[in-house]
Amino acid sequence: MPITDAFLDTLRSIVGDKAVLTDGGDLDPHLREERGLYRGQATVAVKPATTEEVSAVVKACAAAGVSIVPQGGNTGLCGGAVSDAGQVILSLSRMNRIRAINPIDFTITVEAGVILEDVQTAALEADRFFPLALGAQGSCQIGGNLATNAGGLNVLRYGNTRDLCLGLEVVLADGTVWNGLKALGKDNTGFALKHLFIGGEGALGIITAAVMKLYPRPLEKQTALCAVDDVAQVPALLALARAMSGDQVSAFELVARFGLELACRHLDGVTDPFEDAHPWYVLAEFSSTRAGTDLRAVFEGFLETAFEQGIISDAVIAESGQQEASFWRMREGLPEAQKHEGASIKHDVAVPVARVPEFLDRAIAGVVAALPGLRPCPFGHVGDGNIHFNLTQPEGMDPKAYLGHWEEMNRIVHDIVVDMGGSISAEHGVGRLKVDEIIHYKSAAEIEVMRKVKVALDPQNLLNPGVVVRI
Amino acid sequence: MPITDAFLDTLRSIVGDKAVLTDGGDLDPHLREERGLYRGQATVAVKPATTEEVSAVVKACAAAGVSIVPQGGNTGLCGGAVSDAGQVILSLSRMNRIRAINPIDFTITVEAGVILEDVQTAALEADRFFPLALGAQGSCQIGGNLATNAGGLNVLRYGNTRDLCLGLEVVLADGTVWNGLKALGKDNTGFALKHLFIGGEGALGIITAAVMKLYPRPLEKQTALCAVDDVAQVPALLALARAMSGDQVSAFELVARFGLELACRHLDGVTDPFEDAHPWYVLAEFSSTRAGTDLRAVFEGFLETAFEQGIISDAVIAESGQQEASFWRMREGLPEAQKHEGASIKHDVAVPVARVPEFLDRAIAGVVAALPGLRPCPFGHVGDGNIHFNLTQPEGMDPKAYLGHWEEMNRIVHDIVVDMGGSISAEHGVGRLKVDEIIHYKSAAEIEVMRKVKVALDPQNLLNPGVVVRI
Repeated sequence: MPITDAFLDTLRSIVGDKAVLTDGGDLDPHLREERGLYRGQATVAVKPATTEEVSAVVKACAAAGVSIVPQGGNTGLCGGAVSDAGQVILSLSRMNRIRAINPIDFTITVEAGVILEDVQTAALEADRFFPLALGAQGSCQIGGNLATNAGGLNVLRYGNTRDLCLGLEVVLADGTVWNGLKALGKDNTGFALKHLFIGGEGALGIITAAVMKLYPRPLEKQTALCAVDDVAQVPALLALARAMSGDQVSAFELVARFGLELACRHLDGVTDPFEDAHPWYVLAEFSSTRAGTDLRAVFEGFLETAFEQGIISDAVIAESGQQEASFWRMREGLPEAQKHEGASIKHDVAVPVARVPEFLDRAIAGVVAALPGLRPCPFGHVGDGNIHFNLTQPEGMDPKAYLGHWEEMNRIVHDIVVDMGGSISAEHGVGRLKVDEIIHYKSAAEIEVMRKVKVALDPQNLLNPGVVVRI
Repeated sequence: MPITDAFLDTLRSIVGDKAVLTDGGDLDPHLREERGLYRGQATVAVKPATTEEVSAVVKACAAAGVSIVPQGGNTGLCGGAVSDAGQVILSLSRMNRIRAINPIDFTITVEAGVILEDVQTAALEADRFFPLALGAQGSCQIGGNLATNAGGLNVLRYGNTRDLCLGLEVVLADGTVWNGLKALGKDNTGFALKHLFIGGEGALGIITAAVMKLYPRPLEKQTALCAVDDVAQVPALLALARAMSGDQVSAFELVARFGLELACRHLDGVTDPFEDAHPWYVLAEFSSTRAGTDLRAVFEGFLETAFEQGIISDAVIAESGQQEASFWRMREGLPEAQKHEGASIKHDVAVPVARVPEFLDRAIAGVVAALPGLRPCPFGHVGDGNIHFNLTQPEGMDPKAYLGHWEEMNRIVHDIVVDMGGSISAEHGVGRLKVDEIIHYKSAAEIEVMRKVKVALDPQNLLNPGVVVRI
């Protein structure tokens, strides 16, 4: 359906003139796409300020047969917030109130448009900790984190966004508001509707508010960079860390030698702390929510045991905040460092933790055989089995020509992942980017169940059509 | 549809003669109901041994228009495995293989019919810990635990059954097998179908196998009984415990004075460890998965601080395994102790932890006003906000006459629970028992979404019809 002036007037009557954007400059932030793979084509974005306004907008769109692209901070990496011409972008940015914080209950109730960093800050101000943390936290919104079930840096210890959510408020496809804002650790009164909307990428309902869990603040931390000569030992290193720490491992990140070299070459303040070169590194962190513990001794004991058992060949404990920051700068700056070496083909995959070494062996051999000179730069949250299997282009190759190999590399890497019982999108979601890829790999039965759920909840296909599943 | 001889022959051809039970004696365990509120009426129970057999049975039932009651250990408390005449009971008991255990990955892959205690034992034999623990663990099955999202004693630290599950294998309503047996901590490739079947009580699909999480073994533990004079202080006590322990609280159970008195009166080996009477008690436990820690000192520090802040008025630390067992015998024996005092009306409710005291004040006042002489015996997992709000009959009253007040008490208690944003079934589920109760309390929107999901996944209404939701 085309967007008519009468329809725009209806939207204005619901949210006010200023909250209906039709001007190019105002619209632009809602049309850009993080990786530059797409550009939104919508000519209108609407910014409701309340749940009631979201409901009224959805009802108006349903009546007019206009489909809706819900949008949070628009920082997703799979094109889940990209619009077509004739669609309405529904931005949650103005729904940015923290409705309640309850330190005794360890809960916070937030509207969908609250910036992730503002949730973290509000928790700290109440002497609590909100563990969700990721690169885009200064601009992504908690509603988008929920809709994509965001992962990030603290999944090993605290779980994905899904695991941090107690209750939701959702506007359904017909505009009805479902109030599931329960702050309960236990509630077995029917199907787990909450979990359909979390990770549903806005295709089943529009999340307008959530009750999230808080935790005691981490008060002590020990960080080390470990040198690993045989990547096959990495799962054993993690198991040892879990056992010896009393499950207080808060980070366990893998980096290949090539990644460390790139980081040292291109990032300020990053140096190789070891005398010798090693093929793999693990950035390991233990943390405690108590102060004054024996965490340092426990951490040293873990590293000594790992060394004695031949699991690691060396380790450097961060002896200052500066050194710790340098280790993390190395890890977190890898995508930036890669840019200096030309184009990258990227994969966000997961396999069972114990099979990460086998995956790396097979996938590295596969891609290098297919394109000699290609430089694998795998890194990531190996504690979750999640590898960002990034591939830097061969030296001197034309970047565009290199990116032309993306589909071919996808097939090689994803075939191995699926063969190993893995996931081709560990934390970034499906969006528009991977709809065909999941159809290719999932069983017909699973795609059919997803289609049935979509049709049941959104029979007019009004909510983010074409994202996650096509009907 | 009536069960015909031809249909029975079809079932026999799938699972073998011995696995189709039609004899009264063989059937009896499948017809009994834990609380004696119902009795199953089916004339046939079928016991497939493999996923393929489950699939074939479901296809045969779908073709014949015969509906199915999936059954695990048949220990549920809400009538979720009760059959009508003309239905087939599908027992998963013969699917009792542990398919794989992977200590490095901290995962175990089990078939639905494995007894919960056998999962725990297999984990311990691999030097790992499976935290799900509840009264029926010697006879309930993991498939039933998943289908009802069972809670139990370790939810505060490890979550509900839902939180312990990584992947599922499910036979759908048309007999198709969905293989979602992923051993992944991260997988964002579409709607979270797993979470529909977990807690779905067999109404959306039949769980045949699961990948469950394992944990490092707890190696140290400290247990105390705390005397609390003002129940309003209980949430603050929990928050202090979480903060001072570094989130190592593994149990936090509330018991009223009346419960302690009953336990001392009726249970062997239970005595009141305090000189004075106190209105409330908290059984608190810290545990660590490391040995040789300062857990005792931390625990003592917590109790001292709580005493100094006036949150508790006394505490006794268990100084022996025997004393610890006595504390737990007191807590776990409460339902048994109650039986000696006549009939009980029971509720399994949850409210936000911080509102537990307000709930207790209001609910106790409400039921006592409605039926003078009634003796409230609330206890339970207050760390999850989950109270088993059990009401012992007035002394000398006819038990049957007392139980006639069940509906009236339900209304009083559940009205307060719902008014406080709580749950009327925290861990036991809906089954047949609470279908009308959730219709009464949930919004029409929520019931309608549940109905739509049920119709989408089971359009013939073949899977456990009438359980959770009616269509």
